[in-house]
Amino acid sequence: MLNDTITAIATSLSPSGIGIIRISGDDALNIIKEIFRPINNDKDINEVKSHTIHYGHIVEDNNVIDEVLVSIMKGPNTFTRENVVEINCHGGIIVMQKILKLTLKQGARIAEPGEFTKRAFLNGRIDLSQAEAVIDIINSKTDLALRSSVSQLEGSIREKIIPIRTELLEIIAHIEASIDYPEYDIDELSFNHLKQNMEQIIKRIRALLDTADYGKILRDGVKTVIVGKPNVGKSSLMNTLLKEERAIVTDIPGTTRDTLEELVNINGIPLKIIDTAGIRDTEDIVEKIGVEKSKKYIDQSDLIIFVIDISRELDEEDYKIIELIKDRKTVVLLNKSDLSTKIDVNELKEKIKKPLISISIKTKEGIVEFEEILKNMFFNGDIDFSNDTYITNVRHKDALEKSIKSLNNVIETINLGLPEDCISIDLQNGYESLGLIIGESMDESIIDQIFSQFCLGK
Amino acid sequence: MLNDTITAIATSLSPSGIGIIRISGDDALNIIKEIFRPINNDKDINEVKSHTIHYGHIVEDNNVIDEVLVSIMKGPNTFTRENVVEINCHGGIIVMQKILKLTLKQGARIAEPGEFTKRAFLNGRIDLSQAEAVIDIINSKTDLALRSSVSQLEGSIREKIIPIRTELLEIIAHIEASIDYPEYDIDELSFNHLKQNMEQIIKRIRALLDTADYGKILRDGVKTVIVGKPNVGKSSLMNTLLKEERAIVTDIPGTTRDTLEELVNINGIPLKIIDTAGIRDTEDIVEKIGVEKSKKYIDQSDLIIFVIDISRELDEEDYKIIELIKDRKTVVLLNKSDLSTKIDVNELKEKIKKPLISISIKTKEGIVEFEEILKNMFFNGDIDFSNDTYITNVRHKDALEKSIKSLNNVIETINLGLPEDCISIDLQNGYESLGLIIGESMDESIIDQIFSQFCLGK
Repeated sequence: MLNDTITAIATSLSPSGIGIIRISGDDALNIIKEIFRPINNDKDINEVKSHTIHYGHIVEDNNVIDEVLVSIMKGPNTFTRENVVEINCHGGIIVMQKILKLTLKQGARIAEPGEFTKRAFLNGRIDLSQAEAVIDIINSKTDLALRSSVSQLEGSIREKIIPIRTELLEIIAHIEASIDYPEYDIDELSFNHLKQNMEQIIKRIRALLDTADYGKILRDGVKTVIVGKPNVGKSSLMNTLLKEERAIVTDIPGTTRDTLEELVNINGIPLKIIDTAGIRDTEDIVEKIGVEKSKKYIDQSDLIIFVIDISRELDEEDYKIIELIKDRKTVVLLNKSDLSTKIDVNELKEKIKKPLISISIKTKEGIVEFEEILKNMFFNGDIDFSNDTYITNVRHKDALEKSIKSLNNVIETINLGLPEDCISIDLQNGYESLGLIIGESMDESIIDQIFSQFCLGK
Repeated sequence: MLNDTITAIATSLSPSGIGIIRISGDDALNIIKEIFRPINNDKDINEVKSHTIHYGHIVEDNNVIDEVLVSIMKGPNTFTRENVVEINCHGGIIVMQKILKLTLKQGARIAEPGEFTKRAFLNGRIDLSQAEAVIDIINSKTDLALRSSVSQLEGSIREKIIPIRTELLEIIAHIEASIDYPEYDIDELSFNHLKQNMEQIIKRIRALLDTADYGKILRDGVKTVIVGKPNVGKSSLMNTLLKEERAIVTDIPGTTRDTLEELVNINGIPLKIIDTAGIRDTEDIVEKIGVEKSKKYIDQSDLIIFVIDISRELDEEDYKIIELIKDRKTVVLLNKSDLSTKIDVNELKEKIKKPLISISIKTKEGIVEFEEILKNMFFNGDIDFSNDTYITNVRHKDALEKSIKSLNNVIETINLGLPEDCISIDLQNGYESLGLIIGESMDESIIDQIFSQFCLGK
């Protein structure tokens, strides 16, 4: 149903300064004409230039519903490539709903989640990976995740996928020709060349796939839990890590702290710190929530930060924790390095077999080393943060894996000496798997499923 | 500090389709020029026409932060009368904050709550009553409240206040003249005329003041509690009352039900039904929460709906409730009128001394009568819902009361035969009290206090 006109509230349905009702489709201009009375009464909203803003009132039966600004954007140079009207009204729940209802009354249909972006895709303005970037931008939780998603929106994944597909298509055409016209038969040499080709292409796809682990971290953060017995400095550490974020957060009034404060950036690595038992307020996680529960948190985490107070001797509680973390990715922080030590670090190192960092949360000594260790742990130390193309989407990851599998099959098929049409089928599978990423020849139900995860009005 | 340029996120800081960052002030255009790269690179954003929309990217050090639409609106034909720029970006928390920070980096200052509207007021585009209407529109919980606030924004209160002030000013000028030039002395006849004048004006102010009770109801709803012993039909009643709202609510996906569902419109009268003990799920409020707590709810309510099941004889529990509600505004619903009665209605009427309505929630019999009774109870039956001017603001109500008091003093002062300058002082007080409503000659701290109640970005 690409011909009908859709409408939705595109901002949050909660009280705020501005609310936007967005309309897209052939009838968008006719609909706004019926419910909008420009301040300049002579103005015909159907005749105004594209990309202009008009001040006036939304009216129903001559009653003024709200004072608004109406943005007129005529297709094809719009988000959806259709005529788009945005009503910039007061951000009240009742008033936004009321205006939405008026647009419905004039014949618009309520948009499904993601339907505006879906239209941008179906109308060919953006590919599927770009469309998916839209929701990723909205849900970004870190600067790096945002950068990666914006670059995906700008076509970074498309730019990697299209040349590979073009190459594959040429090879397929060549093989097909040899099937159709036996005089173009492929010789041994050509098969070797094809195998080399495949290995080359697989390598390129794998390089993309290798970014997926980073991509997941960028997107979701490293699930981190801070453990240690009472009074070793866990909450001070938490506060130190949160410090920069907090400053940002409190600088901007109205920021919902909850949405941000558990995600801290350590040198670009987003740690999603699980606030187990209100660690910021109390101190004693293991004590408070018990060993069993600590174990549960530890098992669910990607990273454990184990804090030891070196000014006190290790005791049973420390050993309990050492036992709990033994198979887990852990950084051990030897805190209070500014005090004299009562711990045999070599013995501990032997026992615990994890990176140990001497640190003083108080004097900030060791914080830089801590960040370096983290970087090595999660990015093999070789991550280039200026590279913006990361595979953050599980769907893309699956498609890349499928494609590699098919192209590996090509090599195997050649090795087995199977007929050329078998090779062709594998090549086509590889080609089509890549196509899934940008949304070529896809099943409509899958497309629907993808856009159903969008928020309303986008 | 009217010269600096302010910036804020004007939509909710929660993930949604669209986010708006709004900038207002002399530097708004220079700031956007630094951070915005139009798709058409030759475009100079400082030179474009007012009220136009521009597609491009927000950039920081050549990194694309987001794909946006930028609205350029040049003063004085803007919300604040200053240059206003709105950046229409993706509605993600990180991206909105990031763009906000870029505007701050370019020299804008974060706006205080309500500061955009405050500038509209200080720059003379709207008066204070209109400014206050902005936040009332955003917080409107019913259609009628919205209508009343919009009409206030359009100047309905101003239109009532200004002519009265003009009249008072003329009288003051007359009196002052008689003080300065004794040859214009005021005779007995003129004093009588002045008293008549005062009575006339007081009457007009009082008419406005009389709408305040309705105004409060429109704004906040009638705090209502439904009581009755178990299984008399309380939750069915609740569901019936909520039905229309629910339909609206579920029609529009994404609606936060919590914000609306407790407010139901009975024939235009918003009832704010207190969901005491999850009455919709269970049935037995008094039983469940106990008599003491029921009493507390009853005491806090403007209206009690007491449901009795006429197919059962009255028992001790009913009598307990009758005792609880005896001094409270109550409507008694005799439910299950479709079944044979076991209640002596006349005896009950005698005992309870409240309006009784025979009703069947099942067959909808009596619902219309119920609505009529409510209308009579809260609007003396004579409310004209097409009248849009209601005093919904306590500050306005206080100012009107003060003004009446001063003008009554004028009459008294004349009656006491006190000198003309005493009359003049009272007249001026009355005049100035009315001025408070539209924000004439007001204390800056009071103005600050009013706007501090606004939401951010408005």
